[in-house]
Amino acid sequence: MRVLSGVQPSGRLHLGNYFGAIRPQLELQAGHECFYFIATYHALTSVERRADLEAYTLEVALSYLALGLDPARTVFFRQTDVPEVCELAWILSCQTPLGLLERGHSYKDKVAQGLSPNHGLFAYPVLQAADILIYKSHLVPVGQDQKQHIEMTQDIQGKFNLRYGDILVRPEPLIRPEVAVVPGIDGRKMSKSYGNAIELFGPLKEARKRIMSIVTDSTPVEEPKDPARCNVLALLRLMAEPQEVADWEDRYRRGGCGYGEAKKRVFELYEQTLGEARRRYEELSRHPEEVERVLADGGRRAREVARQTMREVRAACGLVNVLD
Amino acid sequence: MRVLSGVQPSGRLHLGNYFGAIRPQLELQAGHECFYFIATYHALTSVERRADLEAYTLEVALSYLALGLDPARTVFFRQTDVPEVCELAWILSCQTPLGLLERGHSYKDKVAQGLSPNHGLFAYPVLQAADILIYKSHLVPVGQDQKQHIEMTQDIQGKFNLRYGDILVRPEPLIRPEVAVVPGIDGRKMSKSYGNAIELFGPLKEARKRIMSIVTDSTPVEEPKDPARCNVLALLRLMAEPQEVADWEDRYRRGGCGYGEAKKRVFELYEQTLGEARRRYEELSRHPEEVERVLADGGRRAREVARQTMREVRAACGLVNVLD
Repeated sequence: MRVLSGVQPSGRLHLGNYFGAIRPQLELQAGHECFYFIATYHALTSVERRADLEAYTLEVALSYLALGLDPARTVFFRQTDVPEVCELAWILSCQTPLGLLERGHSYKDKVAQGLSPNHGLFAYPVLQAADILIYKSHLVPVGQDQKQHIEMTQDIQGKFNLRYGDILVRPEPLIRPEVAVVPGIDGRKMSKSYGNAIELFGPLKEARKRIMSIVTDSTPVEEPKDPARCNVLALLRLMAEPQEVADWEDRYRRGGCGYGEAKKRVFELYEQTLGEARRRYEELSRHPEEVERVLADGGRRAREVARQTMREVRAACGLVNVLD
Repeated sequence: MRVLSGVQPSGRLHLGNYFGAIRPQLELQAGHECFYFIATYHALTSVERRADLEAYTLEVALSYLALGLDPARTVFFRQTDVPEVCELAWILSCQTPLGLLERGHSYKDKVAQGLSPNHGLFAYPVLQAADILIYKSHLVPVGQDQKQHIEMTQDIQGKFNLRYGDILVRPEPLIRPEVAVVPGIDGRKMSKSYGNAIELFGPLKEARKRIMSIVTDSTPVEEPKDPARCNVLALLRLMAEPQEVADWEDRYRRGGCGYGEAKKRVFELYEQTLGEARRRYEELSRHPEEVERVLADGGRRAREVARQTMREVRAACGLVNVLD
């Protein structure tokens, strides 16, 4: 089964990204043929500065490779190295009722917030459909809340095939098991835009400072605490072995254990969990040409598949390209 | 000055197309560097069948070459041979406020007619902007009613350059002098969709039949007629020398001259005006490989310019493509 997933380079990656998306993506490598791309075209809907986009693109590439993306198994590439996807997006646009896009969640959210979206944001689901369909992907890992986008892709694929024949493959969502929400240091969901994130590969000192400043209630050390309502334990739970988690919960309930102690342990676990990846990240940072080689190789492999699909799509629509 | 113009392959060409658009386009060849393309991607918004799109594309190519497009001077190509234009359309979409497109005439017209447009039709002005901007065109010949689309392109180009620097060239509309509206055989504006058209290169017998059935009033032969209100004279005026036109107007006013006589003359003029082109059309129809060679050569020349622009655009936005 071919699995497709894209990651938007729109900032530095944090623990929320790791537990919510990256780790499950990397686990899929074992049993599937994965096509993972850095969604540089999509990022243009929100990233305005050239230097930011370049830095975020590198950050995604370094992080995924450091965290265990295996470029021998997985086709890992920059979206921009396969511009054919924009051509397919146009062709699919002509099969996409405007009403379908008007019902898009992300678009409606922006409008509800009183923001004036650009056309890229409105057309985002069509480019997403093109990404999925150009590689004839079978599965797209998504959270429950992103299911709508895969349904849109299915609609568009269905309309295309109905008109032009059995060319594109219907993808299915691969709904990720609900990961506990990863809280940020202020207790809200960890998110770059809330400024409450713990970065994966930022300076260690900074990570330590942020972990030590996780918001807790002010129950004194000696009193019992509710393990279900502690942001520190919520993070610990994601990184510690089950037995250790049980021990901490027990100590919380008994009292006599302070939040500061738990925070120190969270920082240790953070170091353990990401330590090896951090070393690889730093090593790779010194060899950008190696990252470049991996992405170019992935781009070539992805593009070969995309070009074959486009030859079939153009022929089916009556479009001619004699130069490709 | 570089002039850009596209023609949508959406049916057989007729006298209205010729006098309204094709002839002025061909006249521009003398003083400008013209890039003329067959808008195959745009056609997808309305042409649904593969065989139709293929036939209409060939019809446009044959007709323009037969009517005097000089492929040694003018870069004549299929839009689909330069798929980079779809990539630029995506990038420009991220600079295009949604409101700009919502104010588009063609889109509003469709909605007003109660039609449910597809996204391609809505996004049409962005692809049009990409067509114009990718070739750094200076001038775009349009009728007064299409001025809005060039203004949209100017807006999008302005936004792009403001954010990314002085990359794209601001195009200006080259407003075509008002051509008298070409009436169809029922007196309404000649249009494929009204079924009132006289084709350029259909069977001669059919053209004759249609010209002979042009609707007139029933003023008897001997009575004076108003030359300003006759559909037959309106067509004759487009093809005859000024002296001959004056003579006919004179005879109309004096009476004694029948509509049938004028129609016969219109058919003769039609044969004269298009006779040589018709021979070339038929000759070229027997040599599709020659048409193909011209389009491929034009495509290569156009693509070279487009690729250079895309290299500049990608670099300015922070997008990387190492495979192109």
